Amino acid sequence: MRKTPYQDLEARFRRMDAVSGAMSMLHWDMSAMMPTGGGASRAEQLATLSTVHHAMMTDVAIEDLLDGAEADVQLNVWQQANVREMRRAWIHQAAVDVDLVEALSRACSASEAVWRTARPANDFKSALPGLSEVLNLSRQVAEAKSEKLGVGLYDGLLDQFEPDGRSSDIDIIFSDIAAFLPDFLDDVLRQQETGEAILPLQGPFPADQQRALGKIFMAALGFDFEHGRLDESLHPFCGGTSDDVRITTRYDEADFTTAMMGVLHESGHALYDQGLPKAWRGQPVGGDRGMSIHESQSLLIEMQACRSQEFLTYAAPLMREAFGGQGPAWQSDNVLRQTTHVEKGFIRVDADEVTYPAHVILRYQLEKAAIYGDLQMADLPGAWNEGLKNILGITPSTDTEGCLQDIHWYDGAWGYFPTYTLGAMTAAQLFAKAKQDKPEILSSIAQGNFAPLMVWLREHVHGKGCLLSPSDLLREATGETLNAAHFKAHLKARYLS
Amino acid sequence: MRKTPYQDLEARFRRMDAVSGAMSMLHWDMSAMMPTGGGASRAEQLATLSTVHHAMMTDVAIEDLLDGAEADVQLNVWQQANVREMRRAWIHQAAVDVDLVEALSRACSASEAVWRTARPANDFKSALPGLSEVLNLSRQVAEAKSEKLGVGLYDGLLDQFEPDGRSSDIDIIFSDIAAFLPDFLDDVLRQQETGEAILPLQGPFPADQQRALGKIFMAALGFDFEHGRLDESLHPFCGGTSDDVRITTRYDEADFTTAMMGVLHESGHALYDQGLPKAWRGQPVGGDRGMSIHESQSLLIEMQACRSQEFLTYAAPLMREAFGGQGPAWQSDNVLRQTTHVEKGFIRVDADEVTYPAHVILRYQLEKAAIYGDLQMADLPGAWNEGLKNILGITPSTDTEGCLQDIHWYDGAWGYFPTYTLGAMTAAQLFAKAKQDKPEILSSIAQGNFAPLMVWLREHVHGKGCLLSPSDLLREATGETLNAAHFKAHLKARYLS
Repeated sequence: MRKTPYQDLEARFRRMDAVSGAMSMLHWDMSAMMPTGGGASRAEQLATLSTVHHAMMTDVAIEDLLDGAEADVQLNVWQQANVREMRRAWIHQAAVDVDLVEALSRACSASEAVWRTARPANDFKSALPGLSEVLNLSRQVAEAKSEKLGVGLYDGLLDQFEPDGRSSDIDIIFSDIAAFLPDFLDDVLRQQETGEAILPLQGPFPADQQRALGKIFMAALGFDFEHGRLDESLHPFCGGTSDDVRITTRYDEADFTTAMMGVLHESGHALYDQGLPKAWRGQPVGGDRGMSIHESQSLLIEMQACRSQEFLTYAAPLMREAFGGQGPAWQSDNVLRQTTHVEKGFIRVDADEVTYPAHVILRYQLEKAAIYGDLQMADLPGAWNEGLKNILGITPSTDTEGCLQDIHWYDGAWGYFPTYTLGAMTAAQLFAKAKQDKPEILSSIAQGNFAPLMVWLREHVHGKGCLLSPSDLLREATGETLNAAHFKAHLKARYLS
Repeated sequence: MRKTPYQDLEARFRRMDAVSGAMSMLHWDMSAMMPTGGGASRAEQLATLSTVHHAMMTDVAIEDLLDGAEADVQLNVWQQANVREMRRAWIHQAAVDVDLVEALSRACSASEAVWRTARPANDFKSALPGLSEVLNLSRQVAEAKSEKLGVGLYDGLLDQFEPDGRSSDIDIIFSDIAAFLPDFLDDVLRQQETGEAILPLQGPFPADQQRALGKIFMAALGFDFEHGRLDESLHPFCGGTSDDVRITTRYDEADFTTAMMGVLHESGHALYDQGLPKAWRGQPVGGDRGMSIHESQSLLIEMQACRSQEFLTYAAPLMREAFGGQGPAWQSDNVLRQTTHVEKGFIRVDADEVTYPAHVILRYQLEKAAIYGDLQMADLPGAWNEGLKNILGITPSTDTEGCLQDIHWYDGAWGYFPTYTLGAMTAAQLFAKAKQDKPEILSSIAQGNFAPLMVWLREHVHGKGCLLSPSDLLREATGETLNAAHFKAHLKARYLS
């Protein structure tokens, strides 16, 4: 029997998924296992697989098959959604000429390499030509994609990370939070100053014990070790495939809380991947629903669920036991004060959840201006420092602590930053509704039992895959469109109560 | 400027090598890192990459390009050899119809899965249908390849592992060793019986210390940790790529010698891979020279160099120190007696270097008969037991200890077995010549200095890649064609002195 266009597409996308999965494992290996001398041959492997994937996606047959599948009235809702996601993936990959893809890839590698030395050397000037070239090529990508998608220039890039994401919506939500933050932050810092002092936790904290403790928490969360691992890498991440999720962390023997919160964060990502619909593995509709939903799952676990009195009621005694700790510093309320300390700082990745949105909003404003041609990269350091002064009231003394700190732009990730804060707001909105639906969630967490929360997330988020658009997913799960109200309420409850 | 056919082929083979390299890393991960639940998606990744590789190799343009490159009078000797190896690789992959490749691949997976339970259950009957199907399809492959290569049926398969290997040559060499072994073995066992008793080494031997000791020996050998790793897997192997060689071992805390000799063995393989000509990375001529040369490098290190009084003069004190050993059991001559103990046994992988060839010759005779249609798989258990009785004088009481013990045939590796013993003989021949050329080799090893040996191997073996045929490589290195004389001399010197 001849395959229908839909069946043909399913087979093709399964093959593409296998190639992507292979690349994903090789990326994990590169970060967690590979000796330095393997770099050149690994780059060759990844570049080759990337062109193989591109060739599969841009095969001349695909467009007709998509048309055929879209006209197929026999498809069920999952299959229809699958075709919609195939079309989206195809648009993003086929919109851009292969020469531009290659030029951008090469420019990113070169720019990133220069950035790696420019950052510690506080040498923005040396990074500028590469960065300008990456921006120039990214703007060409933005043009190609925005035309195909019928959206604005910035949204052509944003849509890669946040399906259907539109800057007009983000502007409204970010204005709300930007208006709220300065006064709120002052209040929090004032209250923190007059509150109880934080007692230091005495180390050292051996990496082996940190690892064992992290695995205890992962198991409590429901991480499936038959389909995943915990390892180490310089920059923690969640990688691999839905059937084999690889998370990493980095141990500091003088401070265990960073690695621990990192493991909880990556576990949130991993639980999402592991919970994606098994029946649709290898198909676009079985994948994750974009960056802000993905980030919402890590932040829901790390920020909403685990930087809480309830989690620490369960976790602090385990920490004390793991490291042989003694005295009042190990009481859960002191550990909570430590893990919810708020401070204005220059570095985004070190920021607490109160100041984090300020860092993101700054980057969002700057990258939008850059993509629209209103900000030249030569003017970036000044614009950065002025922007941070406006939003947080502080000015970095070096570009190392300013516009050189993040790899993203230098590595070609333009249009990505807003998803961090969209994720934080999505997390607050989902967690609020979950607690409303299942009031036992917090009291269960206090006993190390995440099952009620996980059951809710599996049903309303993980198990949906890409059946719905991100905004429909959120509306079905919470009854509301994305808004900042729950995030603000969460911050008030945690930091001003 | 337009590419020449040769340049075009170089670019294509570089891409194919990148795909093979990716597969190789994914295989390593599957054995050393992957959680069990990742198996299905990994199989999908490997199958997809395998079809991608096959499509690249069987592209319609390749044959004309090969013809064009072979007619190119501008090529230097390395480039000419590169074209020759491209032709060989192309013949092996293009000779076989893609449907047969897929059918064989599926049959092997199914048969191997049954074998995994049939072996411990001593249930040959359940494994028989799968094995027969694998043999049936392998014979079809043999027919296709033997026709293209203009060789006999068995040699069509052998040539995949041993380029230009011919069973007519093997028959002569194996007859020689088969005639030598029985009486020699009797003499060895008799002398061993009257010799000094082996004092047991008292454990336990913690895995961490075994690992650290293994790395000390690897470093002494010259293993480049910038381009490789040591990890653990159920079945030790050497994998990865020449730029990133991954070896594995398996620790038994009651006996460290197995893992230690295993690490030395795999390091021999790894040193070969790391020493292949850097200028030809990613090209066929830059690859290894087939299975018997590869095995010769592991056996040269493990058997020739390291199961020796000289190596143990250096190594025994390090072992004693690593495990806090005491008393005469830790003296080098006792450790040597332990690592050169000879015993008739049923299991190939546990066999010493004296009885090992008997196991290989048995399998070689049986697989040749099977490929030529003279042995049906239903008759395998009887033929196995009769053959082992003839060559070693012992009969296994179960198929678990007999024809079910090795994965090879069940997994489709027909025509592979003889390379183990060809490798052992090649190792003896190379080591004899190396010692003749550089008399300081053994005395240096007694001081933990492998440099003189490594320099010789780099020059005469590793650095040659596939410039020469295996037999020309050996002739240029030793002045002789492959023969059993050096292997026999080595056995006599070590076991009857």
